[in-house]
Amino acid sequence: MGYFDIHGVLPPLITPFSESGSVDFEAFGRNIERMNDTGLCGYLVLGSNGETPYIDEKDKIELVRLCAKKAAPGKLIMAGTGLESTSSTVELTRRAADAGAQCALVLTPSYYHEQMGDDAQIAYFTAVADQSPIPILIYNVTKFTHINISPAAVSRLSQHPNIIGMKDSSGNIAGLIGYMTAGLDPEFNLMVGTASAWYPALCIGVRGAVMALANCCPRECVQVQTLYGEGKYTEALALYKRMFPVNACVTGKLGVPALKHACDCLGFEGGHPKSPLLPLTEEQRGQVEGILHRAQVL
Amino acid sequence: MGYFDIHGVLPPLITPFSESGSVDFEAFGRNIERMNDTGLCGYLVLGSNGETPYIDEKDKIELVRLCAKKAAPGKLIMAGTGLESTSSTVELTRRAADAGAQCALVLTPSYYHEQMGDDAQIAYFTAVADQSPIPILIYNVTKFTHINISPAAVSRLSQHPNIIGMKDSSGNIAGLIGYMTAGLDPEFNLMVGTASAWYPALCIGVRGAVMALANCCPRECVQVQTLYGEGKYTEALALYKRMFPVNACVTGKLGVPALKHACDCLGFEGGHPKSPLLPLTEEQRGQVEGILHRAQVL
Amino acid sequence: MGYFDIHGVLPPLITPFSESGSVDFEAFGRNIERMNDTGLCGYLVLGSNGETPYIDEKDKIELVRLCAKKAAPGKLIMAGTGLESTSSTVELTRRAADAGAQCALVLTPSYYHEQMGDDAQIAYFTAVADQSPIPILIYNVTKFTHINISPAAVSRLSQHPNIIGMKDSSGNIAGLIGYMTAGLDPEFNLMVGTASAWYPALCIGVRGAVMALANCCPRECVQVQTLYGEGKYTEALALYKRMFPVNACVTGKLGVPALKHACDCLGFEGGHPKSPLLPLTEEQRGQVEGILHRAQVL
Amino acid sequence: MGYFDIHGVLPPLITPFSESGSVDFEAFGRNIERMNDTGLCGYLVLGSNGETPYIDEKDKIELVRLCAKKAAPGKLIMAGTGLESTSSTVELTRRAADAGAQCALVLTPSYYHEQMGDDAQIAYFTAVADQSPIPILIYNVTKFTHINISPAAVSRLSQHPNIIGMKDSSGNIAGLIGYMTAGLDPEFNLMVGTASAWYPALCIGVRGAVMALANCCPRECVQVQTLYGEGKYTEALALYKRMFPVNACVTGKLGVPALKHACDCLGFEGGHPKSPLLPLTEEQRGQVEGILHRAQVL
Repeated sequence: MGYFDIHGVLPPLITPFSESGSVDFEAFGRNIERMNDTGLCGYLVLGSNGETPYIDEKDKIELVRLCAKKAAPGKLIMAGTGLESTSSTVELTRRAADAGAQCALVLTPSYYHEQMGDDAQIAYFTAVADQSPIPILIYNVTKFTHINISPAAVSRLSQHPNIIGMKDSSGNIAGLIGYMTAGLDPEFNLMVGTASAWYPALCIGVRGAVMALANCCPRECVQVQTLYGEGKYTEALALYKRMFPVNACVTGKLGVPALKHACDCLGFEGGHPKSPLLPLTEEQRGQVEGILHRAQVL
Repeated sequence: MGYFDIHGVLPPLITPFSESGSVDFEAFGRNIERMNDTGLCGYLVLGSNGETPYIDEKDKIELVRLCAKKAAPGKLIMAGTGLESTSSTVELTRRAADAGAQCALVLTPSYYHEQMGDDAQIAYFTAVADQSPIPILIYNVTKFTHINISPAAVSRLSQHPNIIGMKDSSGNIAGLIGYMTAGLDPEFNLMVGTASAWYPALCIGVRGAVMALANCCPRECVQVQTLYGEGKYTEALALYKRMFPVNACVTGKLGVPALKHACDCLGFEGGHPKSPLLPLTEEQRGQVEGILHRAQVL
Repeated sequence: MGYFDIHGVLPPLITPFSESGSVDFEAFGRNIERMNDTGLCGYLVLGSNGETPYIDEKDKIELVRLCAKKAAPGKLIMAGTGLESTSSTVELTRRAADAGAQCALVLTPSYYHEQMGDDAQIAYFTAVADQSPIPILIYNVTKFTHINISPAAVSRLSQHPNIIGMKDSSGNIAGLIGYMTAGLDPEFNLMVGTASAWYPALCIGVRGAVMALANCCPRECVQVQTLYGEGKYTEALALYKRMFPVNACVTGKLGVPALKHACDCLGFEGGHPKSPLLPLTEEQRGQVEGILHRAQVL
Repeated sequence: MGYFDIHGVLPPLITPFSESGSVDFEAFGRNIERMNDTGLCGYLVLGSNGETPYIDEKDKIELVRLCAKKAAPGKLIMAGTGLESTSSTVELTRRAADAGAQCALVLTPSYYHEQMGDDAQIAYFTAVADQSPIPILIYNVTKFTHINISPAAVSRLSQHPNIIGMKDSSGNIAGLIGYMTAGLDPEFNLMVGTASAWYPALCIGVRGAVMALANCCPRECVQVQTLYGEGKYTEALALYKRMFPVNACVTGKLGVPALKHACDCLGFEGGHPKSPLLPLTEEQRGQVEGILHRAQVL
């Protein structure tokens, strides 16, 4: 088992679909090619912003394979492989590893949430990590799972040699400190999962991020960290604040369809959202564009 | 397209697993045989209590096929076929119909909950109903999906000739009246989805139910309705109250593993829960048994 | 200490204010006179619908006094006396008793909600009951307090000789059964606190109610119980359903200002809401009136 | 109307009570004397940590008067004066000003939360600010009020010449950025209301704070800001992290009684909590002390 020290920004890659709902693999590949020289440290394929719950297993594997092929050398390939059952998660993780994933991001199981307390989460992630050929990270995204894994559970899991980090998508900075102060393995990669918390996360010592905004504005997301690293705090904070409304727009009420439209506007290929996600209305598209203008990225 | 007037109780069948996590089809079949003469009006296969999110598609279809084969003549075969995407739901519904399902129970899509408002739900259920070879029912289970479909959306969908009902699992009686008074097609089957609301649901005119408790206590669940139908309100209410703590136990904090243990205690075969659900501890098994004793079913 | 067997409907009386925000005592008194022959079993003064958090102590006592004076003989006078601290609640309860209240409805303390668990609630209600000259009832209104007192706590408190009942405003029928099956003193008055659950509450054995709707539609609220008592279940259910949208309107998004406008429309005196509650807009008034028309009360 | 540029830390002063529940004014005064030379920039009297909902109006005014008298010269005297109604809040604010308060912290009204949207909040704060003889700050404390005032409302209110800031107690850093990017008057004091977010708040440009922890650990709270101001980021972050578990303890599950016990342990006078708050158990006191030890403050 290997280990990765994740320093930088990964986009949770969107999945362009044709109007009929099939994956547009070519557009997906072209997006990666366009992103290769923007300073990103790697790619997350099959995250929430990839409409992953709508993609069948065959297409999932093809997306991982294609991502590994199109990514420039040195980029970290992370794949979202969490499913509700332990056995299906292990199986998908193995297949993703075969297809080129270097590590896996595993969602907290959540359907039977009243039974998914610390004991169940610890048993689940331990079982997956034991059986995975590649290192795994915990994916804590309360917004979608309505589960918030506890600091105690994360502290315990961080000791496992094949669990190398966590993506926390809450945007809750005090929550991140709660994880840190619960006691984490020193090599554990505590990553922030939303651009809404990027600059303050850097300030408290976070070094890696997976953020939807990096699909449409990769350079700006990278630049916040670069400026921070150079000690240019004022500029980093200003850039982060400038991008804040864009992030709120593409991750909030309008969701993935807005993110895809922003990609279309900013030189990438968003493609159609997949049903039951609805395409944006004309008015909503105008809203997105207005926000991009005001943020001076369009 | 046909129509069903659903009057009676269906259990959302549990799925027994072997210790290694494979479906125990034989135990599943034997449970149905035992239930065939308990007065149930049909079976729901692949509901939430069946640990359906943990079952792969091949096994799902085999469970539907087996249910249709083992069910006594005249029993309604309902299959849970809701997945997150429209296309995968349609595909699974078709396969379930081929395997013998007479109608399908379709979960509200929920992952991208901020985008799953009325417009999205109406478009989704309309698309599924249009393409389904069998009638469908809406499955509203806020506890698991964190979505509560609106009365306005249900009113509209009830007009669709291939949408014949809804299972509402909230246990919220005022909510059921909210659906009724929003205006439903007169033939629409508004079903209650939990034994916690069974007697009051009968009082407001509900005639059909899908309830976890019917896995371990089918006769008692049926008897509440029979007594009610005979005008024996006091006895019906007393029986409902006697079963209330059992239902709370097998659907509450201990969940499906408790339901399976109750099945084991009461002459059915629960089998193992599937990981990440944890088996009950010795102490928890004792709790379940104590509650069964106090309710005079054990 | 006495005991009351509460059978019937009490309105949580609205408090008419002048435009400047002072209590309009005369309108308050006239409303009671108009209600005296509508079949109500008593009055709750200083409930949530009375904008009680906006009324100072002197006016509170005057309202109790006036209510006791204007009420027809035989009506039960209940006063809402719950404040956040034990000592201030005891003091207000004593003063309300002196002014003519026969029993007191005491809100669960809630500000420091993380510390207001079973132990704190039991200690609080026991202390208040011990020191109150009149019997008290627990007021459980999760919508406003964000506290839901547990069945175990209520079971324990029901044994206290000076705690004679509870108003549960959740509208959750299964929750009421949960209280009942936890074990209540046989004389304990478990009352429903919203018209949205009135008919089903009667079906499970509830005999008393405090409901906002009884301010504007007292006869209809009473009639549901009368019909139920005569075994005219179909008519009782139909009347309850007919009033359901009116209740939803005057207790929902538009709140007390809508209730007051409905009172104005239906022969009572609503008066102004008190700031920071805003008066209804013209459009909102039209909505209320439309709903009253459709329910055939206007 | 004046204006204050608030730079530094204020404690929301605890209120010591005698065992019988009366305010211990002398202990209150001695606490201030002990705090006067710890670097705090002022005092908040009558905040949530002062058990203010349990204190009657006469004692409230006396506490303000005493605070103004005992505070060293140059300390800002802020008083919590928010009540549910507009008129009672204005009245209390006037009396607090007469007693020596230099500015007032006004809670968002919340009881009728469904009606307390942007329009109502804007009207309320505008009315209070118009009539207040001293500048006011908005007090947004979702944990207690279950209301979260919107960025749009705060942006609008920040333009009012007599509304000089807001204490946001959410600890949500992204939320603070949301307020900032909605457009605030440049002089508006956006203050953080919890030590759980102190260091990251400084990083995004916040300069003032009101935090419970400053009751028992004033020097450490001040020191975080001092170190930050000197560019000693690593030390500031380390100190903040060291204090994080102490803050979690005195503001979390154990609440104000734990804060009071920590005060007792660290050289201040906590006094008794007031009923219905329960005193800590022996075991809970031990927990608090253990946490103080591990944080190296005891």
